[in-house]
Amino acid sequence: MRIDLNSDLGESFGRWELGDDEALLSIVTSANVACGFHAGDPGVLRRTCEQAVANKVVIGAQVGYRDLAGFGRRFIDMEPAELTDDVIYQIGALDAFARIAGDRVRYVKPHGALYNAIVHHEEQAAAVVEAVRLYDPSLPVLGLPGSAWLRRAAEAGLSTVHEAFADRAYTPQGTLVSRREPGAVLHAPQAIAERCLRIAKGEGVVATDGTVVPLRADSICVHGDSPGAVRIARAVAAHLAEAGVELAPFTTR
Amino acid sequence: MRIDLNSDLGESFGRWELGDDEALLSIVTSANVACGFHAGDPGVLRRTCEQAVANKVVIGAQVGYRDLAGFGRRFIDMEPAELTDDVIYQIGALDAFARIAGDRVRYVKPHGALYNAIVHHEEQAAAVVEAVRLYDPSLPVLGLPGSAWLRRAAEAGLSTVHEAFADRAYTPQGTLVSRREPGAVLHAPQAIAERCLRIAKGEGVVATDGTVVPLRADSICVHGDSPGAVRIARAVAAHLAEAGVELAPFTTR
Amino acid sequence: MRIDLNSDLGESFGRWELGDDEALLSIVTSANVACGFHAGDPGVLRRTCEQAVANKVVIGAQVGYRDLAGFGRRFIDMEPAELTDDVIYQIGALDAFARIAGDRVRYVKPHGALYNAIVHHEEQAAAVVEAVRLYDPSLPVLGLPGSAWLRRAAEAGLSTVHEAFADRAYTPQGTLVSRREPGAVLHAPQAIAERCLRIAKGEGVVATDGTVVPLRADSICVHGDSPGAVRIARAVAAHLAEAGVELAPFTTR
Amino acid sequence: MRIDLNSDLGESFGRWELGDDEALLSIVTSANVACGFHAGDPGVLRRTCEQAVANKVVIGAQVGYRDLAGFGRRFIDMEPAELTDDVIYQIGALDAFARIAGDRVRYVKPHGALYNAIVHHEEQAAAVVEAVRLYDPSLPVLGLPGSAWLRRAAEAGLSTVHEAFADRAYTPQGTLVSRREPGAVLHAPQAIAERCLRIAKGEGVVATDGTVVPLRADSICVHGDSPGAVRIARAVAAHLAEAGVELAPFTTR
Repeated sequence: MRIDLNSDLGESFGRWELGDDEALLSIVTSANVACGFHAGDPGVLRRTCEQAVANKVVIGAQVGYRDLAGFGRRFIDMEPAELTDDVIYQIGALDAFARIAGDRVRYVKPHGALYNAIVHHEEQAAAVVEAVRLYDPSLPVLGLPGSAWLRRAAEAGLSTVHEAFADRAYTPQGTLVSRREPGAVLHAPQAIAERCLRIAKGEGVVATDGTVVPLRADSICVHGDSPGAVRIARAVAAHLAEAGVELAPFTTR
Repeated sequence: MRIDLNSDLGESFGRWELGDDEALLSIVTSANVACGFHAGDPGVLRRTCEQAVANKVVIGAQVGYRDLAGFGRRFIDMEPAELTDDVIYQIGALDAFARIAGDRVRYVKPHGALYNAIVHHEEQAAAVVEAVRLYDPSLPVLGLPGSAWLRRAAEAGLSTVHEAFADRAYTPQGTLVSRREPGAVLHAPQAIAERCLRIAKGEGVVATDGTVVPLRADSICVHGDSPGAVRIARAVAAHLAEAGVELAPFTTR
Repeated sequence: MRIDLNSDLGESFGRWELGDDEALLSIVTSANVACGFHAGDPGVLRRTCEQAVANKVVIGAQVGYRDLAGFGRRFIDMEPAELTDDVIYQIGALDAFARIAGDRVRYVKPHGALYNAIVHHEEQAAAVVEAVRLYDPSLPVLGLPGSAWLRRAAEAGLSTVHEAFADRAYTPQGTLVSRREPGAVLHAPQAIAERCLRIAKGEGVVATDGTVVPLRADSICVHGDSPGAVRIARAVAAHLAEAGVELAPFTTR
Repeated sequence: MRIDLNSDLGESFGRWELGDDEALLSIVTSANVACGFHAGDPGVLRRTCEQAVANKVVIGAQVGYRDLAGFGRRFIDMEPAELTDDVIYQIGALDAFARIAGDRVRYVKPHGALYNAIVHHEEQAAAVVEAVRLYDPSLPVLGLPGSAWLRRAAEAGLSTVHEAFADRAYTPQGTLVSRREPGAVLHAPQAIAERCLRIAKGEGVVATDGTVVPLRADSICVHGDSPGAVRIARAVAAHLAEAGVELAPFTTR
């Protein structure tokens, strides 16, 4: 039994630091590295890639909308062709640093509002798929099971990686409870760790109404932008390891 | 006898158009394509690379300071390590589009204030050299003969390409007359074309005092951001061709 | 009989020039000056304000989304509170230049995607109204008759100014034909000028089906970002003047 | 006996938080609020102004180079006229929020590389002076005694406010020891507090060679971007208060 742990990294910018990348890189197996459009300046990209390689963590491109002020968390109603080009630009830029660090970009995961948009937004989903296909059709893509993004990626011949969230509540339909609802985000490290073990074992997830929802996940997303988040990530990794689940990237270096 | 003609291209941004790229790509043999930091959005980069390939024009990365408001024409006193990373980022981003278009980035030429700074600024010159060396040490670099930039590039084992300017006056010492001086920029197409032919033939350039200054050039820079500039570029190319000088890139695709 | 002519101005940025501001400022009576978020750098704002004052043209703040790459033409799903603050920032910045030029910002007109969004988007409409109310509740606001923007502005006690478009086709319902439809934009100067005279006289506008739709307008928007657009603006102004309609700002300096 | 304490505030941006503004606003009497070019988004500006007013802290415009990636810490060799306009833009934008909060911008202090540049750079010093003079010649300006900035400001008729630094070592000539030298920045709260008391009393400052250098200061700059910095600021304020020095802004609200 094995599963991947992924986390958003490289989200500092200039004078502003965000997230405990050093701690996370000792826990996770895949690093979603920001590419400069929503976060991450070139120096941050370089250091994050170097540290990922030093920690044998796989590098993925965390592509987002061009929106530093909004941290990529605001939907932008772009033309699909513009979005395709913005994503290609970001992957190419990050790949330069990944290669200099001795590896390369090995997957693509959209960030923030783009991640959410392409669950349903067919044109933008297709645009991001097109960017990956043009850049390198051998790159797997990471996303939400059931999303337009993964469906269209599969149709285009890309490998798809199903993602679950360690600290998010699920509806009985298997979708994420909106962050606007109470209880949408879980905080107890042990409960989260146990939930992740069930997911890793393929036993599904307990939904808000107590029912068990089947959920296949190749990767679990953990967060690292607060001390509490790092503690949770550590608890998840330790609990999985103790239970004999191997933590390993979904794609090889 | 052969020489390369290069020009700055891909300098539009979003709603703002600049330069007659279509005309220039039918004249020059090397395209210095902006990479998004001083000009050029991802869509512009893509179209410029596609059109360059369609015209069999070689693609180079025109890297600059991160300064859209100043068009990269203002010196920024950056830390060398930051500059190295900014340049890597830009080359990687452009290379993505060059590769999608069926070619790749084949050389590097700094833009504007960065071009001027690294004539003398040793630390920034070394920083840009380091970026090229890390990204791909087989990439030639284009610049001013006698500059710190070309000297340090050669010391680092990079191929250097000497550049002359079609429409700029030269001092008896072989340096460019400052744009602040009267007569620094030439405007008569025929006179410029004749000067370029002398340069291509290795006969040197007539300086402001009438003396002939020896000048070796592998590439001549022509401009294209005004109707007059395009006419001059056409006159230069025609005059060279009539005289039996082959227009050919300094590096092969 | 009198009417205002307004136009979007100050939309250059750094090296990039857009629009023939000098020509437009000799034609229109109100200048919607970009404030730096979708277009317009500080130098452009200053020159535009100075030239507006020299031409006795009233200065309005043309506020937009923070999106230089998209020229403010892409809807951004911002939090209303963020939008309020972005609009306040823009008005304040422009007002500095307007005051230095000897006048002040005298009205507010949203730009591009923001203009279109707040026809229907109640939260964003309310957010922009709140910005104007906080900055200076005596500032009139310019917009589309029937929009959420004007309705909410009126409810908040702001003066509202109804705008018609010189070169746009209208549906029988009095709304604008979408730019995606054929015939949405008119091009014949004389026909446009005649239509503007009808609007100025309060005789309504001839819709796409030939029926006459009543339309009250206090201001007519003319464009100036192409030689053809300037010709149209001139034709409109001349035709109105010949017919005895006074061209005058809707608000006094 | 009285003195002003000033600190840099409002330097967060979007998702990125920097500095403990709440703590600082309970300590200092003048707030140098970032204006969006090197730090500070519109929401940050608004909240900082509101909190400053709530704490009866005077609001100043901390103007900087347009350089988010470099946090305004990199010298940019701008045209003076461009710099004047950039500074006007920033003051105007901040003033909008200061006025909405019930006060107004009451002084101007340049930030980072601009602060350092205009100690000696005559053209840029004159450009910032010109911006303040045009915006409102009644605004005092804060800076380093002996700087071109304060000299030119005085010549232009502006009020000048002399600033000392709580935690910086001084040379026997009364200038700051470069940050590149060892011992340039002091860290012991009590020693710093005692030094500030001497400054407030007009007893000068003990230089690196043990001599006492005369130093007139109207305001002392304290930092707040780390827990240690806040402790130092508290120690300074407490020590001054115990010694009977009144902490009061150099200008009144």
